[in-house]
Amino acid sequence: MNPALEDLFSFLRFASVSTDSNRAMDVRACADWLCAKLRAMKLDVELHETPRHPVVVARNAHVAGRRTVMIYGHYDVQPVDPLDLWHSDPFQPEIRDGRIWARGATDNKGQMLAHVLGVEEILRTQGELPVNLIFLFEGEEEIGSPNLAAFLTENRDALRCDVIAISDTGMVAPGVPTLGYGLRGITCCEAILRGPKGDLHSGLFGGAVANPAAAIARLVASLHHADGRIAIDGFYDDVRTLENWEREMWSRVPGVADSDFLKVTGSPGLFGEPAYTSAERVWARPTAEVNGIGGGYQGEGSKTVLPAAAFVKLSFRLVPDQDPANIMHKVKQHLESHCPPGVNIEITHGHDGKPYITDPHSRFGKAAQAALRAAFNAEPVLIREGGSIPIVQTFRDILGVDTLLLGLALPDAQIHAPNENFPVENFEAGIRLNQALLKELGKD
Amino acid sequence: MNPALEDLFSFLRFASVSTDSNRAMDVRACADWLCAKLRAMKLDVELHETPRHPVVVARNAHVAGRRTVMIYGHYDVQPVDPLDLWHSDPFQPEIRDGRIWARGATDNKGQMLAHVLGVEEILRTQGELPVNLIFLFEGEEEIGSPNLAAFLTENRDALRCDVIAISDTGMVAPGVPTLGYGLRGITCCEAILRGPKGDLHSGLFGGAVANPAAAIARLVASLHHADGRIAIDGFYDDVRTLENWEREMWSRVPGVADSDFLKVTGSPGLFGEPAYTSAERVWARPTAEVNGIGGGYQGEGSKTVLPAAAFVKLSFRLVPDQDPANIMHKVKQHLESHCPPGVNIEITHGHDGKPYITDPHSRFGKAAQAALRAAFNAEPVLIREGGSIPIVQTFRDILGVDTLLLGLALPDAQIHAPNENFPVENFEAGIRLNQALLKELGKD
Repeated sequence: MNPALEDLFSFLRFASVSTDSNRAMDVRACADWLCAKLRAMKLDVELHETPRHPVVVARNAHVAGRRTVMIYGHYDVQPVDPLDLWHSDPFQPEIRDGRIWARGATDNKGQMLAHVLGVEEILRTQGELPVNLIFLFEGEEEIGSPNLAAFLTENRDALRCDVIAISDTGMVAPGVPTLGYGLRGITCCEAILRGPKGDLHSGLFGGAVANPAAAIARLVASLHHADGRIAIDGFYDDVRTLENWEREMWSRVPGVADSDFLKVTGSPGLFGEPAYTSAERVWARPTAEVNGIGGGYQGEGSKTVLPAAAFVKLSFRLVPDQDPANIMHKVKQHLESHCPPGVNIEITHGHDGKPYITDPHSRFGKAAQAALRAAFNAEPVLIREGGSIPIVQTFRDILGVDTLLLGLALPDAQIHAPNENFPVENFEAGIRLNQALLKELGKD
Repeated sequence: MNPALEDLFSFLRFASVSTDSNRAMDVRACADWLCAKLRAMKLDVELHETPRHPVVVARNAHVAGRRTVMIYGHYDVQPVDPLDLWHSDPFQPEIRDGRIWARGATDNKGQMLAHVLGVEEILRTQGELPVNLIFLFEGEEEIGSPNLAAFLTENRDALRCDVIAISDTGMVAPGVPTLGYGLRGITCCEAILRGPKGDLHSGLFGGAVANPAAAIARLVASLHHADGRIAIDGFYDDVRTLENWEREMWSRVPGVADSDFLKVTGSPGLFGEPAYTSAERVWARPTAEVNGIGGGYQGEGSKTVLPAAAFVKLSFRLVPDQDPANIMHKVKQHLESHCPPGVNIEITHGHDGKPYITDPHSRFGKAAQAALRAAFNAEPVLIREGGSIPIVQTFRDILGVDTLLLGLALPDAQIHAPNENFPVENFEAGIRLNQALLKELGKD
């Protein structure tokens, strides 16, 4: 096995499950191994304690006038349950069919270590990097980065940089280099409708008072028009119109045709906002989703109860330039004004995240495209992501810097699931990608 | 204590909880006590075994040419949980504040034994009854009378009668004699909507496929117009129009004003079909109630999932002359034709019960009114009930006979709940009621 794969296997053997307090020593050992690896590369390495798992920062000797690039990654991993579905030990990596099988292979150890080894290769062959580099590696990404924002705030000066690169997103298909330049934001709430003081007998009282479960259905139905458009007043006001180049580009992106969405989801049919493709709906259009609805009898068979209350958990995926606070204000107004008679409504506001977009045709965007082209010897596709990556917005808010998303995760990487895997060729492409990226970003 | 109360206390001390297999011996002992009581009255008594709890039948010596009256009751009771909410032992009856406190005090031992003791009184004072009497007492009413229909069918000839009387319903207020002449029917179903093959990440897929929880809300909302009327095509076709005398009568019935419904339910406001009072809505208008709705995340906080499926449990209370099968056909047609795109629907039909109505101004109805007037020394009110009592329809179907509902249960009797109680005066009125009823029914 070559030294790069040996390093990755060593890194993958740490059971650095951040959510599991019984694994805290493994997380720590993993951070220590990482520090040792970075020190062996003659980088300046700091291990910063946090209330839970440490942050590792490493940098080369910075030179005035050079561009400063931060590369972010995380060395913690998701739990492995259910263990019996794994075909091999999640912490004993194996290569089968050209892929590395282990927890963290793709998310994020494989992608992250590719950047480390790319830097090692530059230093070995050229003696120095073309940029001032800051590696920022945390051990709490899989538990929501609870201590990262405070760390960034406390170390804002030391972490000042021109651009950030992350490889922790997807590539649309094998061999298709993918630059992510946008993320959806989110805002969440829960509404509870309360009617009678207790569950009522539907025979003795049915017809005389509002049924909160029927009322929640009517309220939820009011959120959408029949054709799928969201019916909240002003909801689309700040939505940035898709640009022609995006629609044209996305129509050619492999793996995200309507037929692909149909196959991957297993839904009986696609359904969404009219006049958009599935990719456009997911990447560039906002949603109002019911994450949970409940009320009344939940068991088998029937129970003729008129429930005292019913709830709905809603989340709204947002796109540029929607503002979570503004949207939640409109959502609350809608819910309150559409609440059916005979019940009281109580709305609880959940978590928020701003949508994100950066210009893939900016200087840094073009550098990322050039690096992807060089690493994969293919023309990159430019996409947005339907999900939210809160740290990207945190970086912009605290450090004032944009992030390039150079994803290496394949759709079948099984991240967060049994049998996570990472193709050896993606790992090797990642090492090349890092070298090309730093070279491109170092150019004037 | 007078002998009548002593009998009732003995009867109440049996923990005849029919649903609890550990109490089967108590149910049996209760039936045996009942048989002994009836035999001591020189009635001809039969204890009929069923697969679970026995049926007790008792009759006087029938005389050709006399009217035959069946009086039905049940000697089984509901469970007593939660026991710690009782102010006294549910199976050690006590009298406090003029009420008898015990499980079964109202439902149904108190009401049922009043009829037994009324008959005893007639026999003691007059030597014979003015009618041919059949007492039919079962031990499975609280578990849905699973063996009663078969028993009625097998003994149809022996149980032939002209009219049936039951005291197992409510009286609207203390001192207000109440004749029930109608019951709502019911038909139930469950609809499940299925979308993606598994729960999806609402970021990665939200917007591209239908959300089954949003779809179930839209489907349920389609069942009603905003004003509360049911929107199913043809749903009201066979609904019998309320007669003027009913509306006039019900407007004067104490305890069922809109303000009473508001107070009893504790709802923030009344809501229902326009142009009807609460009592009219509950007693004489059909409903479409959501008994349960569910789908997606049910725990605390938020989880950004797009659920694979969602369900709704529906029940429809029916009024004369709606037919459960016909209504369920219309419901299914509605659900299928209103099912939103992008999900599949699966409908499961639950249990049915026909609505019931009898003429309170018929010969037997007038006899019941006269008996109530005599027993309470007050003018009786004529009401329907919002609930369903399946045995009443079973009697009509198998024996071809109508049932008079002479309820003695007060609104605060706490049936099926802790601290069940029955006023001593209602018990004594029930004994008088029986005597007056048999006298009236015995008249030509």
